[in-house]
Amino acid sequence: MSELTKRQKMQAKYRALWLTKDGDLEVIDQRYLPHQNRTRLIQTGAEACEAIADMTVRGAGVIGNVAAMGVYLLVREFGDDMESILKGAKSIRESRPTAVNLMWAVDRMMGVVSSSDNRLVDAKAEAIAICDEDVARSREIGRIGCDIIESIMAKKKLDSINILTHCNAGWLAIIDDGTALAPIYEAQRRGIPIHVWVDETRPRNQGANLTSWELLQAGVEHTIIADNTGGHLMQHSQVDMVITGADRVTRCGDVANKIGTYLKALAAKDNNIPFFVALPLSTFDFDACNGVEEIEIEMRSEDEIHFMRGIDSSGKVSEVRVTPLESKGANYGFDVTPARLITGLITEAGHIEANEEAIKVLR
Amino acid sequence: MSELTKRQKMQAKYRALWLTKDGDLEVIDQRYLPHQNRTRLIQTGAEACEAIADMTVRGAGVIGNVAAMGVYLLVREFGDDMESILKGAKSIRESRPTAVNLMWAVDRMMGVVSSSDNRLVDAKAEAIAICDEDVARSREIGRIGCDIIESIMAKKKLDSINILTHCNAGWLAIIDDGTALAPIYEAQRRGIPIHVWVDETRPRNQGANLTSWELLQAGVEHTIIADNTGGHLMQHSQVDMVITGADRVTRCGDVANKIGTYLKALAAKDNNIPFFVALPLSTFDFDACNGVEEIEIEMRSEDEIHFMRGIDSSGKVSEVRVTPLESKGANYGFDVTPARLITGLITEAGHIEANEEAIKVLR
Repeated sequence: MSELTKRQKMQAKYRALWLTKDGDLEVIDQRYLPHQNRTRLIQTGAEACEAIADMTVRGAGVIGNVAAMGVYLLVREFGDDMESILKGAKSIRESRPTAVNLMWAVDRMMGVVSSSDNRLVDAKAEAIAICDEDVARSREIGRIGCDIIESIMAKKKLDSINILTHCNAGWLAIIDDGTALAPIYEAQRRGIPIHVWVDETRPRNQGANLTSWELLQAGVEHTIIADNTGGHLMQHSQVDMVITGADRVTRCGDVANKIGTYLKALAAKDNNIPFFVALPLSTFDFDACNGVEEIEIEMRSEDEIHFMRGIDSSGKVSEVRVTPLESKGANYGFDVTPARLITGLITEAGHIEANEEAIKVLR
Repeated sequence: MSELTKRQKMQAKYRALWLTKDGDLEVIDQRYLPHQNRTRLIQTGAEACEAIADMTVRGAGVIGNVAAMGVYLLVREFGDDMESILKGAKSIRESRPTAVNLMWAVDRMMGVVSSSDNRLVDAKAEAIAICDEDVARSREIGRIGCDIIESIMAKKKLDSINILTHCNAGWLAIIDDGTALAPIYEAQRRGIPIHVWVDETRPRNQGANLTSWELLQAGVEHTIIADNTGGHLMQHSQVDMVITGADRVTRCGDVANKIGTYLKALAAKDNNIPFFVALPLSTFDFDACNGVEEIEIEMRSEDEIHFMRGIDSSGKVSEVRVTPLESKGANYGFDVTPARLITGLITEAGHIEANEEAIKVLR
């Protein structure tokens, strides 16, 4: 039994995706959290593509997992029709522009698919392996990150620690424990008293909706704040450390992550607070160096600025329009935090500095 | 006819407050904008106090105006009962903790009230004078600020200018034209091509709800963005200048303003973009120097984090809960931007640098 199958049996509630007994993909529909627990069945490559584009699933890791599963579903659908498989894989690869391990996962799958004699079996095994490897990486990132938490506490002589995080990089984003949240879950397991400041993360509210919900499931103490608030908390010594995830990290250490990450990194630097980015090695983009200049930033629908989803007074999931009908909105999905603002990168291969010298060792 | 009465006749739609023919105060209920235009009648000092505390009115200037009118209403209500007037004035003075010209307006009114032989007439005249002076100041700030806009455009050889603003410091905040928006309205009058990036300003959405609505009335081109977005725009030269208002400015130039202002100032500094704060002189707090240490920051209800107001699909103003029911929220209303991050202060007395040397000349 693979690590994925084993763990999904043990804790089906704490999985972002799994295979059904019919070999279809099923995912938690993250668009309805924290108000409703819904799942979505994905039976074709096109459906995988759609689930990534419409943000049924999001988070660098899970996007990669669903992309890998999507290629397996393409093989199941199209058999020996390599042209259709290639076309479908290209669509999946382009379903979100910023996530580098989406591309990485598709390329790895296509490597297997194009060279295999037993395409369906091998594609399925490879997709499962990609997920299982993420599980193992996530645990490693948690262990290494938690060692850093303990060393910060020792250095600052803290009895408990306040960590700020932006967006969601937990198990809803990376299949087990996550990246940014993995050290927090590990701290919880080690019995370290911890409190998390959760940036609500406008415009999609991944913090207010997903990170808060994950932390509730795990019983981790947390407080949701407006994205505007972190700087004030840092000025008043209410944040001991920042940990975020990443969507893409250049070989020079620049980090593309959810829009607003850069502002928190500036505030951390200004207040001498350690700012860490947790990521699997697959997030590195060795072709890019200057992230601000070289990374294309996804522009999403302006409706995400105008509308806000929640539960209404009758308990129904409902959307309200916040802005005037005639006003325009602009919705940039990510920004780039220059390496000079980052204290360190936490990867499954260890904790390194955010610079070309340190990163090239990992290549 | 006073400036206030004249202008409210000319453009009643563009006034945050006015006196009715019965001598009551009427204000635009800003809690329902941009979705509904409602007004609220204020007939007593206690009602003025409530309107400030529950944010029927907000914005440094208008709070001061309503506070002044509130003292006049106290005099109308209590006549010679100075004890009740003093008690009521104290309540108004404490209805919002951060706004320094709330206190200034109450103190000025009480100076008149306590020394007058014709208390009711003098209190009403003084409250009107406070409003009229704000009108004149606002125009002056607009003129001086717009000269700065023109000089930035000349220096950078721009045909049009992109200005980012945070929160609302227009005529809904300061009785005519506002502070931060005054130079923008003046630019519009001078025919300068201008585009405004409007921070939505969570958690109360003053940008998404009020600034956008004001700019629509004036026909100023604008785009609403999440508060997370400004840093990215600045990295990509899409912002030429930042102008915000202020709730309190210390004699050393530190600026208390809506939570999140500090983060934008950090990003402006990091990208070498001019960051201006527009304010009437009454906003200075000459008793304080180090704003981060000395200014008490208002902590507001966490419900503002959890709930979001807008119009639902049937066009009704409605609230949805965004966060999980079990999660806590923390709602700090303001932060302090250190003087070192501020390019200049725009006041009705001229444009000065944000430091003790420059500010003390104004005292």
